[in-house]
Amino acid sequence: MEKKTVVVALGGNAILRRGQKGTFEEQLENVYHTAEQLAEMVLSGEWRIVITHGNGPQVGNILLQQDAAKHVVPPMPMDVCGAESQGLIGYMIQQSLHNILDRRGRGDIPIATVVTQVLVDKDDPAFQNPTKPVGPFYSEEEAKRLQEEKGWHVVEDAGRGWRRVVPSPDPKAIVEREVIRILVENRAIVIASGGGGIPVIKENGELKGVEAVIDKDLAGERLAEDVNADVFLILTDVDRVRLNYGKPDERPIDRMTVEEAKKYLAEGHFAKGSMEPKVKAAIRFVEAGGERAVIASLDQAEAALAGKAGTQVVRG
Amino acid sequence: MEKKTVVVALGGNAILRRGQKGTFEEQLENVYHTAEQLAEMVLSGEWRIVITHGNGPQVGNILLQQDAAKHVVPPMPMDVCGAESQGLIGYMIQQSLHNILDRRGRGDIPIATVVTQVLVDKDDPAFQNPTKPVGPFYSEEEAKRLQEEKGWHVVEDAGRGWRRVVPSPDPKAIVEREVIRILVENRAIVIASGGGGIPVIKENGELKGVEAVIDKDLAGERLAEDVNADVFLILTDVDRVRLNYGKPDERPIDRMTVEEAKKYLAEGHFAKGSMEPKVKAAIRFVEAGGERAVIASLDQAEAALAGKAGTQVVRG
Repeated sequence: MEKKTVVVALGGNAILRRGQKGTFEEQLENVYHTAEQLAEMVLSGEWRIVITHGNGPQVGNILLQQDAAKHVVPPMPMDVCGAESQGLIGYMIQQSLHNILDRRGRGDIPIATVVTQVLVDKDDPAFQNPTKPVGPFYSEEEAKRLQEEKGWHVVEDAGRGWRRVVPSPDPKAIVEREVIRILVENRAIVIASGGGGIPVIKENGELKGVEAVIDKDLAGERLAEDVNADVFLILTDVDRVRLNYGKPDERPIDRMTVEEAKKYLAEGHFAKGSMEPKVKAAIRFVEAGGERAVIASLDQAEAALAGKAGTQVVRG
Repeated sequence: MEKKTVVVALGGNAILRRGQKGTFEEQLENVYHTAEQLAEMVLSGEWRIVITHGNGPQVGNILLQQDAAKHVVPPMPMDVCGAESQGLIGYMIQQSLHNILDRRGRGDIPIATVVTQVLVDKDDPAFQNPTKPVGPFYSEEEAKRLQEEKGWHVVEDAGRGWRRVVPSPDPKAIVEREVIRILVENRAIVIASGGGGIPVIKENGELKGVEAVIDKDLAGERLAEDVNADVFLILTDVDRVRLNYGKPDERPIDRMTVEEAKKYLAEGHFAKGSMEPKVKAAIRFVEAGGERAVIASLDQAEAALAGKAGTQVVRG
């Protein structure tokens, strides 16, 4: 039987749970638990898998570390911090997954973390309107100084202090798509486009990193197109997409067509920066020819992949 | 014509020069200059190239950053810092190399940074005798406290303060060798085993990161064996290996056989932790069946690869 390909987008909770401090032990334990579910998909013999993941808390910590040491070590720009976080998280995933597969007699399956750049348009309107808060909190005074000194955009964040905000441009292409394709075609498990990828623009004919954050589900969707995935599986901390979220008539959705999803999106059912980009990514994937996209909770990954849990988004 | 394969091991000076502060701009400029030479090898049409590199200053900076933020962000163990540095440096190399090749009409060549674990023996005697200084300097008092608290080994470092020392075990195998092989066979340029790789041991049947530093040239040699390289090219900041270094009868070597190299090694001509592991790695590579190993300066990379510069180490 020809295997199908699934791109699995892991949410932040796959690596760090709410309330945890972010020690290595906590993160590795969570990743190990996640990898157990990914291993089941691999061991079923039915799926080739490609993994992508968020990096919010990890890149946030790297920014805090850079800030604390800024008088001793020159801080790196955000694109470089993103690259660091891909190494950090990819390493944990590849090691855990290898250990689990090896114990089940399949240590021979190659696993690769590919450091991934994602091309964005330098004229993307997001660059005029930075919205994504990153890094440490500052006093108003320091925030305004940084704004002047470094040209940062800063905003007051819900009474907790001032923070830098960066653009969240739309991903256009995975720069390393050919590398990823070669590996997938040669039966490797690939971890790629971590944290939405390292955002790069093309300027004067050259790729150049930019200080921005790409939504990891939208970048994962590009990845899914590039590897010709059959299914795009977005794992998060809720079991299904919901209409009228938080209202008395709240209703979970088991299955929706692209047309229904677009209608719900237009009606404003989905939270910006949270469920909205997931639904957008699901729509894009199916419209680009994918069989189905699924939005489900991490703990129901296998059932969701089998079509028995989560919200299935289909052509109609 | 069938292409030959070269593994190029870049020394620290390929990324950061002595006296530089380590800003991103400095590092990217150095990497770009290095990548220009690597690009020439690729564009000659004669070579498939695999790149490995050091990470001393970068992982040192990550350790300093972690230390400065330790009251806010839980520090990661050294293996994780190594993974971060592979992302950081790999990103700079892959982007620079792509930009240069693209300008020369070969932007189609896939380039991949592979996050790489390197297996070491948990019974390696190095674990009983840590020698490699890493991270920040401490006062004697703090150093002794860390020794007690975390089980670190600390030493007084040439009057500059106290530092942690970690083991430098011998690399046994590249865990991601199959991934790297697949990519090389499919005409990709691969960046792997950065900083000597992320050191892992096998314990209770599982891979597990350890706090250690593997010599990047010795790890590069394993990589060179794994990809069946014809040439192993070690680039550093001296033009050739020298006998009686620093003495009146100092003599550079253009060519030596493995037997000669072993004799010189036994006579103590080469500095530990510096030229010694390079010569050891060169010997191993040729003894394992490689055509030749070359130790040369970064600025003479092409001539060295052509056999016209550096110290050529051959079978005899």
